[in-house]
Amino acid sequence: MKVAVIGAAGNTGIELVRILINHPGFELTTCTSNTFAGQRLDKIYPNFSGRSNIVFEEYDMDKIAGINDFVFLALPHGKSMEFAPGLVNTGKRVIDLSGDFRFKDAGVYSKWYAKDHTAIETIDDSVYGLCEINREQIKKASLVANPGCYATASILALYPALKAELIRADDIIIDAKSGVSGAGRIVDDKTSFIRRDNSIAAYNMTGHKHIPEIEEQLKDVCGKEVKVSFTPHLIPMSRGILVTAYAGLTSTMGISDVVELYRQMYEDDFFISILGEGSPETSFVRGSNAVQIGLAVDERAGKLKIVCVIDNLYKGAAGQAVQNLNLMSGQPETEGLLAIGMYP
Amino acid sequence: MKVAVIGAAGNTGIELVRILINHPGFELTTCTSNTFAGQRLDKIYPNFSGRSNIVFEEYDMDKIAGINDFVFLALPHGKSMEFAPGLVNTGKRVIDLSGDFRFKDAGVYSKWYAKDHTAIETIDDSVYGLCEINREQIKKASLVANPGCYATASILALYPALKAELIRADDIIIDAKSGVSGAGRIVDDKTSFIRRDNSIAAYNMTGHKHIPEIEEQLKDVCGKEVKVSFTPHLIPMSRGILVTAYAGLTSTMGISDVVELYRQMYEDDFFISILGEGSPETSFVRGSNAVQIGLAVDERAGKLKIVCVIDNLYKGAAGQAVQNLNLMSGQPETEGLLAIGMYP
Amino acid sequence: MKVAVIGAAGNTGIELVRILINHPGFELTTCTSNTFAGQRLDKIYPNFSGRSNIVFEEYDMDKIAGINDFVFLALPHGKSMEFAPGLVNTGKRVIDLSGDFRFKDAGVYSKWYAKDHTAIETIDDSVYGLCEINREQIKKASLVANPGCYATASILALYPALKAELIRADDIIIDAKSGVSGAGRIVDDKTSFIRRDNSIAAYNMTGHKHIPEIEEQLKDVCGKEVKVSFTPHLIPMSRGILVTAYAGLTSTMGISDVVELYRQMYEDDFFISILGEGSPETSFVRGSNAVQIGLAVDERAGKLKIVCVIDNLYKGAAGQAVQNLNLMSGQPETEGLLAIGMYP
Amino acid sequence: MKVAVIGAAGNTGIELVRILINHPGFELTTCTSNTFAGQRLDKIYPNFSGRSNIVFEEYDMDKIAGINDFVFLALPHGKSMEFAPGLVNTGKRVIDLSGDFRFKDAGVYSKWYAKDHTAIETIDDSVYGLCEINREQIKKASLVANPGCYATASILALYPALKAELIRADDIIIDAKSGVSGAGRIVDDKTSFIRRDNSIAAYNMTGHKHIPEIEEQLKDVCGKEVKVSFTPHLIPMSRGILVTAYAGLTSTMGISDVVELYRQMYEDDFFISILGEGSPETSFVRGSNAVQIGLAVDERAGKLKIVCVIDNLYKGAAGQAVQNLNLMSGQPETEGLLAIGMYP
Repeated sequence: MKVAVIGAAGNTGIELVRILINHPGFELTTCTSNTFAGQRLDKIYPNFSGRSNIVFEEYDMDKIAGINDFVFLALPHGKSMEFAPGLVNTGKRVIDLSGDFRFKDAGVYSKWYAKDHTAIETIDDSVYGLCEINREQIKKASLVANPGCYATASILALYPALKAELIRADDIIIDAKSGVSGAGRIVDDKTSFIRRDNSIAAYNMTGHKHIPEIEEQLKDVCGKEVKVSFTPHLIPMSRGILVTAYAGLTSTMGISDVVELYRQMYEDDFFISILGEGSPETSFVRGSNAVQIGLAVDERAGKLKIVCVIDNLYKGAAGQAVQNLNLMSGQPETEGLLAIGMYP
Repeated sequence: MKVAVIGAAGNTGIELVRILINHPGFELTTCTSNTFAGQRLDKIYPNFSGRSNIVFEEYDMDKIAGINDFVFLALPHGKSMEFAPGLVNTGKRVIDLSGDFRFKDAGVYSKWYAKDHTAIETIDDSVYGLCEINREQIKKASLVANPGCYATASILALYPALKAELIRADDIIIDAKSGVSGAGRIVDDKTSFIRRDNSIAAYNMTGHKHIPEIEEQLKDVCGKEVKVSFTPHLIPMSRGILVTAYAGLTSTMGISDVVELYRQMYEDDFFISILGEGSPETSFVRGSNAVQIGLAVDERAGKLKIVCVIDNLYKGAAGQAVQNLNLMSGQPETEGLLAIGMYP
Repeated sequence: MKVAVIGAAGNTGIELVRILINHPGFELTTCTSNTFAGQRLDKIYPNFSGRSNIVFEEYDMDKIAGINDFVFLALPHGKSMEFAPGLVNTGKRVIDLSGDFRFKDAGVYSKWYAKDHTAIETIDDSVYGLCEINREQIKKASLVANPGCYATASILALYPALKAELIRADDIIIDAKSGVSGAGRIVDDKTSFIRRDNSIAAYNMTGHKHIPEIEEQLKDVCGKEVKVSFTPHLIPMSRGILVTAYAGLTSTMGISDVVELYRQMYEDDFFISILGEGSPETSFVRGSNAVQIGLAVDERAGKLKIVCVIDNLYKGAAGQAVQNLNLMSGQPETEGLLAIGMYP
Repeated sequence: MKVAVIGAAGNTGIELVRILINHPGFELTTCTSNTFAGQRLDKIYPNFSGRSNIVFEEYDMDKIAGINDFVFLALPHGKSMEFAPGLVNTGKRVIDLSGDFRFKDAGVYSKWYAKDHTAIETIDDSVYGLCEINREQIKKASLVANPGCYATASILALYPALKAELIRADDIIIDAKSGVSGAGRIVDDKTSFIRRDNSIAAYNMTGHKHIPEIEEQLKDVCGKEVKVSFTPHLIPMSRGILVTAYAGLTSTMGISDVVELYRQMYEDDFFISILGEGSPETSFVRGSNAVQIGLAVDERAGKLKIVCVIDNLYKGAAGQAVQNLNLMSGQPETEGLLAIGMYP
């Protein structure tokens, strides 16, 4: 089976390339990049020296659709909805890493992304690509909307507790901390070394685009309106997200039972580990598709605390996209995704 | 006036030395260290080469009390209560950087620090040394209990909102992120470079010792029971704390009014800056006694978000201790503390 | 085929485990650790959660020799020579990652490692395991001495220039910069986060143990005495070595010819890439077995400059050890070693 | 006395501001910035919040010359030579932090900076501002050319050995490692966090602009032609330079005598410390005007190794510029420069 990556020179695009080159089930035929078209990929990303002869190309739908079975769109928000309908209409199956097809209601998109949705008819074809929750629908989908990085960690953190009605749904705090690669390759002062070194800051403190994904998906899980107060922070590391979620306990369940509940809920999910009481660390999942969750019951304050870590470029983007590809193509879900977290 | 630093070789002790050597109002006569007694300070801390002839000494109360007017105790919890009473009884004025004298109720100490308090009679002499809140009492105190680093940032973040009754007091979330120097000089795997590099983790998720300080001081401010769910995180930086506090709004005040309220509340406090809507960064205050606060009103979720940054070793420990010294000795409050944050 | 890792809980041991678990050609049966015997590996290294049921064991030669075909010794210098002879004598093939069998002359070992060699009779069985140079001998060896990390980068940097007699052999400067993981898991002040963050220092400025390896191997290459002045530096990163080598040019060859010469010399070596004029970066090879080399001709000063980067734990230790295993066992040399450098 | 900083929003300009605001001997009247003219300095650099009401201005020579006694030019190479002559001609004394006036021979400038010198007549007024070497001339100079950061560390490292004829002058290797702030505020991929984190690379491997400064100044010291092979590296830290210099020994002097020689040579220089055998670390001088030097005699290879650390923005730029200002104005040389290295 053949695959293409559109927008292969961005942080998530190039991570897709890194995974796909070593994937036994697929041939990566095409990498596009507007900026670098005509240049060898290994000149721009020398980590591929000796490992790839790929040359970046301009986007050419007919050519891409002619060759490939699956197409990844690793494009900025708003760009994917230009490309996806045409590809889907030619029968190609598409995995979109932008936010363009993550909502069933185009109005939600318009409100949070501040632009009109121009491919509303394609929305119905799309499935929200959080594999652990929507596995069966993903297998048959023609268009998978790969989740946002923060959304992946947040939803997986809260899913078991909400499903089991352990916590209140209408008063959830999510304090998220991300490495700098989440900001993409946009080079500005905020992502420069001297600005980020030894410095942490919150940003986008009231309106981050991943909020509606989290609320919509979790509402589907628990059948109630979910209200999340979400705050992302940028911290001095390249990769990794740690999400600390807080919610009021509606149960008197002790920590060991909560841990057990989480373990059972995810027992068939290869990539998810429930570490127990306490916190995982982002380094444990670096460069891997793993999700690790730790838990605490704050009896004094009546809160459940859930800590979830992922690699934002891997399970938070490219790895999960390949996990979706595996599901869609009938490959084993873990194929090509067996890298173990690089710690140290 | 002459001063001594007991426990001068720890992270906070040596930061005290660094500040005091350049302080125009005091002579640093004595630095003690059990580990390094007899060795030159600049051999252990070569940043002092050419700047100090100090030799670390063993602790000798009579000698220290004989020479000095003020004594800093930069000792582990539980050790200060051995030394403080004797010094106070000889008329020395003491600034203690441990947790030993931060509570009016010895029972609170016993519960959170898991040891009996052995100097209960001295507790009454102590004042909680958060200068911006207890300025007048500090001036006259014989024993000042310098606040914990997390407590300093947390209390200053929440003080105006609680005093103005802007937020609920009984359901506060504090998500705190600290640089590694907060862990002291204890060398273990958790504070090693390869463990902390590119890695964040929560720790001590339900019972951090700074919680009772925060609740007790804030209760004094607002006259109500305060309940805090506090989670500290270790992040890959050496210095700095960023606290993100969340509380339910009880007012419909807009962000600009909230900012104005914070500015007015702290208008006489030289070291505190209210940056406005959004977040400060820890680098803005690195190596300085500054406190910077940013704010956001999350109308959707009905929450006030307050972000507060300090340098954990400076305003969070040694700088605040010297600020206390200035107040106690009648020096200008800012004397010796004018270093500007080192960014980049 | 079955393999064991002795000393599996150190930095290089655990990296061996990480590679071997995903290696299609071998079954990892045994991991020993004195410190952690009896504990699950994934409790100590949570990056293995969900990926391994291995329990650390005590070293038991009979048991290990009974099960395994190959044994890795990831032990401190001086320890391997206790274990290797017994294993070799039972017909097991051994890959030793210490310095104990890197020298043909036990006197060299004694001098540089400051201890007597206690397994002199086994030295003759050993081959220096720098695959690109000793490939054929390695295939048949019963004992392979895996090279030091600095030595790997230094020898590969200088090999083509010395072999082609481009440079003087008797006046070589090697300025090496290493990430902190090279220091092993010994936890001390020098490898703590707050000591290494934003700080670089040289160390061991005249007698680093890797010097005699470099000189002995390069002498074999060029047939002349080689004299190296070597200085290692510790820099604030976890993984990676960059070696900058300087030597007087004995030729007027221009940079493009030098680049071409290097390319030809290594054209059959999958893991080595000659990037051309300029410098590679350690991130290009992070988490991979790759070696990248850049070059410059300083005509003004009459010097050739060679910059070589490797991942110290991978090609500098565990990856190279598995490369040796592949050669020894008749597997493809690259099997299990296809991870691409993780940049960013 | 009144001073202005032209180009105050760059890395060195803003460090000048940080030092001058706390300098008791001068009033900082004017900060110019093309980019930020009209904006408050503390909005761009929030570390100055509460500490400065300065508003960035456009450059206006008449206004600046009308008010100030001293003018700092913190401008890109090529820009200073437009501004300096006019200021010097009105009798203002100028400290230029660019390379424009560092050479007596305009031809050297043209060759290394690839542009014609357009203020040749002003060159004669300039003194190379390395305080420890040219102290007396600096006191009277109307124009001081503040040295390059690499040049400062390199010259101070080699000066005593060359002056005492301990080493050969014609075959010196300088391997220099710099933090990222040395690259200025130019925001590009090479200085982004995700590119520099955990990554070291050499750059500009044959023609760095600081080479001619080093050779010219050292030639003045020892009276012989000096030939330097210089290689700069960018390492993952914000501040700090460590220079490792290698030269052939022409003497059999042992390490303790070499250390003693260095100490004597610099005994009147407040900011320079000779630590002895071994290496200093950049963190020891972070945020200070200190220079620290360590030494090693490599008898095997016949080399002297000298390691010198400075803070590139402080002693390597702004701090040294203020040291020059102190000398020019008759203030104590150390005034306003007493900050002690911030370690940790």
